[in-house]
Amino acid sequence: MIRNDTIAAISTPAGRGGVAMIRISGRDAADIASRCFLPKNGQNFADLPARRAVFGDILCRSTEGAEPLRDSGIAVFYKGPASFTGEDTAELCCHGGTLVQRRALEWALRCGARLAEPGEFSRRALMNGKLSLCEAEALSDLLSAKTDAQLRIAEGGADGRLDRELSDIYSALADTLASLYAKIDFPDEDLADLDAEALLAAAQKAQERVTRLAAGYENTAAIREGIPAVICGLPNTGKSSLYNALAGEELAIVTGEAGTTRDILSSELSCGKVLLRLSDTAGVRETAAEAESIGVCRALGAMERASLILLVFDGSRPLCAEDEALARRASAAPGVLIPVLNKSDLPALLSASDLAALCGTEPSVLSAATGAGVADLRARIENLFLLGQENIDAEPLLCSGRQYSAALRAAEHLSAAVSALETGLPPDCAASDLELALGDLGELDGRAVDEEIVARIFANFCVGK
Amino acid sequence: MIRNDTIAAISTPAGRGGVAMIRISGRDAADIASRCFLPKNGQNFADLPARRAVFGDILCRSTEGAEPLRDSGIAVFYKGPASFTGEDTAELCCHGGTLVQRRALEWALRCGARLAEPGEFSRRALMNGKLSLCEAEALSDLLSAKTDAQLRIAEGGADGRLDRELSDIYSALADTLASLYAKIDFPDEDLADLDAEALLAAAQKAQERVTRLAAGYENTAAIREGIPAVICGLPNTGKSSLYNALAGEELAIVTGEAGTTRDILSSELSCGKVLLRLSDTAGVRETAAEAESIGVCRALGAMERASLILLVFDGSRPLCAEDEALARRASAAPGVLIPVLNKSDLPALLSASDLAALCGTEPSVLSAATGAGVADLRARIENLFLLGQENIDAEPLLCSGRQYSAALRAAEHLSAAVSALETGLPPDCAASDLELALGDLGELDGRAVDEEIVARIFANFCVGK
Repeated sequence: MIRNDTIAAISTPAGRGGVAMIRISGRDAADIASRCFLPKNGQNFADLPARRAVFGDILCRSTEGAEPLRDSGIAVFYKGPASFTGEDTAELCCHGGTLVQRRALEWALRCGARLAEPGEFSRRALMNGKLSLCEAEALSDLLSAKTDAQLRIAEGGADGRLDRELSDIYSALADTLASLYAKIDFPDEDLADLDAEALLAAAQKAQERVTRLAAGYENTAAIREGIPAVICGLPNTGKSSLYNALAGEELAIVTGEAGTTRDILSSELSCGKVLLRLSDTAGVRETAAEAESIGVCRALGAMERASLILLVFDGSRPLCAEDEALARRASAAPGVLIPVLNKSDLPALLSASDLAALCGTEPSVLSAATGAGVADLRARIENLFLLGQENIDAEPLLCSGRQYSAALRAAEHLSAAVSALETGLPPDCAASDLELALGDLGELDGRAVDEEIVARIFANFCVGK
Repeated sequence: MIRNDTIAAISTPAGRGGVAMIRISGRDAADIASRCFLPKNGQNFADLPARRAVFGDILCRSTEGAEPLRDSGIAVFYKGPASFTGEDTAELCCHGGTLVQRRALEWALRCGARLAEPGEFSRRALMNGKLSLCEAEALSDLLSAKTDAQLRIAEGGADGRLDRELSDIYSALADTLASLYAKIDFPDEDLADLDAEALLAAAQKAQERVTRLAAGYENTAAIREGIPAVICGLPNTGKSSLYNALAGEELAIVTGEAGTTRDILSSELSCGKVLLRLSDTAGVRETAAEAESIGVCRALGAMERASLILLVFDGSRPLCAEDEALARRASAAPGVLIPVLNKSDLPALLSASDLAALCGTEPSVLSAATGAGVADLRARIENLFLLGQENIDAEPLLCSGRQYSAALRAAEHLSAAVSALETGLPPDCAASDLELALGDLGELDGRAVDEEIVARIFANFCVGK
């Protein structure tokens, strides 16, 4: 699966910008780069000092004839193992036109590089010990993070905190197991560290730490994966305005680049730390469908699947039969219902108490148009899904279902070991449970993980990472 | 307008990728970067040698609290004037997640940088003499190039060839003018270089060179701006298949990244060197509209505006009345009509000669499904719009309407000067025309161009360039 040939890809985001980077990594990186890049000072690229940013011409494949185009740019060479992948790596920064970067990559491929597979640079970093499996998984999350809370979780994995915690637990457990084996092999000798209580305490401590890791993952589902949510309501109740008002606070984009916003928004929306995944059909874009179909039918399917239903009412109109029908359906759905009494800036013809009676829960009264009450709704949503999880900044280190399930298995085996030690079963029982727990932890941190799982992890990366 | 404060922006394309670059340029670049970037070796960023790629932590603004996030990345410092802008510049490469790059930029702004305006880095390069106005315009074209022929034109401007040609013409003309003034001021002295024929020859030579520049621009309109084109035809004649077949050859995307393709394609399509700008309503997406409206009405407006009409017929069906009506409308439209006899892989019920008779021109016979004949159609289109312009690779250096109109004015003034010299008018006449021509050339190459025009040129750049 893993080859040591030389790979190349565009590592910067797809599309047009000022600058784009072609990354070339592998055995022949210097050689290939020296055919793609001609330093202005006339030297050969391969002879330049490592890690120095050099100005020169970047050759670009032309479809028209033999003569390649030239773009000017900057190249840096990283001598392995002091590079991201651990291999010799050249990074060429050309101008960020869509076609010019593509042609530059094509020239690199023509000079002997192979197009990198998704995540292949990171995978080589893993294989060369430059990145742990947990760091790689966190990196993937870092790249796709849509809220600051997600970034913070990913940062914990990416900067090695998870690895250090796991490594700590692992080595403490290995010591415990060694003591236990000593007790099994030399039952009659009075070795200092064979104290049964100390063994039990060590196993309990490990169990507690692993359980805390797993709990950190459970607590942060609302942050990591987002809450499936819908905004429902009759036509002209202000659903789109509510979406915009909720999004507005978060999306005070500082870059002014349209692309950034689009990418962050789509149909996800963050309420503080909580990410809402709004259903496309029934959420934002529902209005058009509604116009066709009395506004209720289409939304119902999405409502059934949502964990959060924001049901919007127009406070400037009295309740009508369709409102009541919709409220009944929403109350019966499995998700949490928050009635939203919108248009509080207009004279009220619908009272909060009537709405509370109809929906069985207090409405959030707000004006999507003026923004009044929107912050309260955001806070209500955030509290709803993070209740009792105030500590999330301190704990969440696991970032994938794979890690979580390994942690759960380890916790289970540790729990069995603790029971065995508590009830005074023969030490072999506890030893075998501890062995299993060590295996689970090894899988979690990547010491002992099979190739197929590694392949699956990197398949989620983009090309160029 | 131009300030020497410190600016920052994301210079890589918007969106998610492996790596993104934050560029910081100006007086305080080193200072601001040292607050954004902490080298792993513990040194201060500002103390590191210039042009060295350094590994470290990039701080990212967090909305949650005081403590910024940390991403790991690479930073390079360029000491002015040896940088793109000519100012001190720091380039920070962080991970290319949408949010992480935005937060890194926000932190840089919090540390004292101002968000760069579109094209502001390039504009500073211009002000600091690192880039000529012609190079800046070519750069803008390079970034937006959609065909290789466009890239090649932009390359001619970006690598200074246009500047050298202009500078040559300018100085030769200035010499001629100096000689002419000598003649005016000292009419009685017999100075060697005052020969009337030599003066005339010099003015003619300049006129010829400027005219060639202008002609190079005219010849390449099909390359630079594209040909407004439509693909028309009744439903199920294979219009979309033809679009895909034409696009297919050009779009054998080597990167495999979906984003690249999307950006290049949209509704533009290159036939070799010629760019076709397909009308959205009547071209690719017309089928849906057609289904509603018998397939003829919607396309007509676009057909009237197009310079090229590809009228698609289904060769496996006999001609029907609607075909004939559409052919009549297309023949009457101002654009060039190419009838396309599609589905040549099926048994023919419509002959090429009948279709030629109907449309008044030979059809291109092809099968969009199998690809047979598609290359011939591409060649036919390319020849049609590049006929007699075989030399385009050698000549086209002007890349903007602004440059073209300045060249035209210069050519006109040179022509007047040549006439004046030929007809033996007093030397003052020719001198005043040459003065005007020099002014035009100065405007063309940016020596004498007003601020508003410069502002307009850079307004077309993206943020970060």
